[in-house]
Amino acid sequence: MLEIKPEDIEKKSFEILTSKMDENRLKFYTEDELLVVKRTIHTTADFDYQYNVIFQNNALQTLKDCIQSDAMIFTDTNMALSGINKRILTGKFGIEPLCLIADEKTIEFAKKNETTRANAAIDLAYQMHKEKEALTGKKIPIVFAVGNAPTALIRINELLDKYKPDFIIAAPVGFVNVIEAKELVKQSNIPAIICDGNKGGSNVCAAIINAVLLQLAK
Amino acid sequence: MLEIKPEDIEKKSFEILTSKMDENRLKFYTEDELLVVKRTIHTTADFDYQYNVIFQNNALQTLKDCIQSDAMIFTDTNMALSGINKRILTGKFGIEPLCLIADEKTIEFAKKNETTRANAAIDLAYQMHKEKEALTGKKIPIVFAVGNAPTALIRINELLDKYKPDFIIAAPVGFVNVIEAKELVKQSNIPAIICDGNKGGSNVCAAIINAVLLQLAK
Repeated sequence: MLEIKPEDIEKKSFEILTSKMDENRLKFYTEDELLVVKRTIHTTADFDYQYNVIFQNNALQTLKDCIQSDAMIFTDTNMALSGINKRILTGKFGIEPLCLIADEKTIEFAKKNETTRANAAIDLAYQMHKEKEALTGKKIPIVFAVGNAPTALIRINELLDKYKPDFIIAAPVGFVNVIEAKELVKQSNIPAIICDGNKGGSNVCAAIINAVLLQLAK
Repeated sequence: MLEIKPEDIEKKSFEILTSKMDENRLKFYTEDELLVVKRTIHTTADFDYQYNVIFQNNALQTLKDCIQSDAMIFTDTNMALSGINKRILTGKFGIEPLCLIADEKTIEFAKKNETTRANAAIDLAYQMHKEKEALTGKKIPIVFAVGNAPTALIRINELLDKYKPDFIIAAPVGFVNVIEAKELVKQSNIPAIICDGNKGGSNVCAAIINAVLLQLAK
């Protein structure tokens, strides 16, 4: 067993995982992007993420701007919500991230409109966002963090004529419609961090946000 | 985009991932074990899990027995807790899974004993378990589901002379002490599902429990 202080474990972990990464990929990303990629590997021990993570349309700066501008952040699962570093996001930036998937209104809306809860949660998020902007009288960025439901990304795409999110984390995992849904995000060219291919997950989604939060908290 | 009903997506996903699995591994596991392995792949899209997941000492039957005998189930992270299917675990079996990591008592205990919160949470879980057994006057199984902190597994091992858990899910992820901590679980021969190597995670930990819950709910 390695005798190591708890506060040094993360540092040591990052040293080890960096030493195992592909040198070409270490050169491919910017320094700040690399911190995001490394944290997805730290969360999964899966080195495929060094090839999968795509930063689209000035992604990192846009997400940082969103967080620093009181964005509303919606996750598609309670698991992703639970994994987000609230000490920084809520404590430092005053943002309470939200997940509407198990909300009563979402369940009702899904029933009434004969759609899925993941779809309904997107519609309701936009509604909440509109209400908050009306209430405060100012422009509020809206961010979707999707680690599970490709249908959430498909719904975002369907509504693009009416609503355009300021940022998307596109990290659903799986084998049905996942690659296709991520393709829609690429085509939209909305600022986004995308986990290409089948991989992703609620934990990866939270890890991406946390990597950015840690950069902002430095 | 594949036109498919939401209720059929999971079925289709399992079909696709099964078709991509190694035939030798499909033969290696029992039918019920395979459902657990497939769900870890479903959760991660990472086919390494078909080689990583170890069922130790009549694992699956023991975990089922624990769940059917009002076990206390402790997770090491709120994220794993959040990912567990409460509709079945709580709704059908009346078990409220617990996570003590952010509990005030844990924080206090960790400070007083100059230890980590992950360690303190194990000590406090055993304390709660003892109190519940004393209160109810019956034997209650205790299960630890670890998807993040190798130190939780190390603490369980340190206390084995005094306390022996009935079941362990050993799925911490990472690069420091993770493999060593899983080795301790193997040496103990306590009934366990172990994700060998560096991989695992809160999502994988929850997926393992959910796979077993779905078998029990059939």
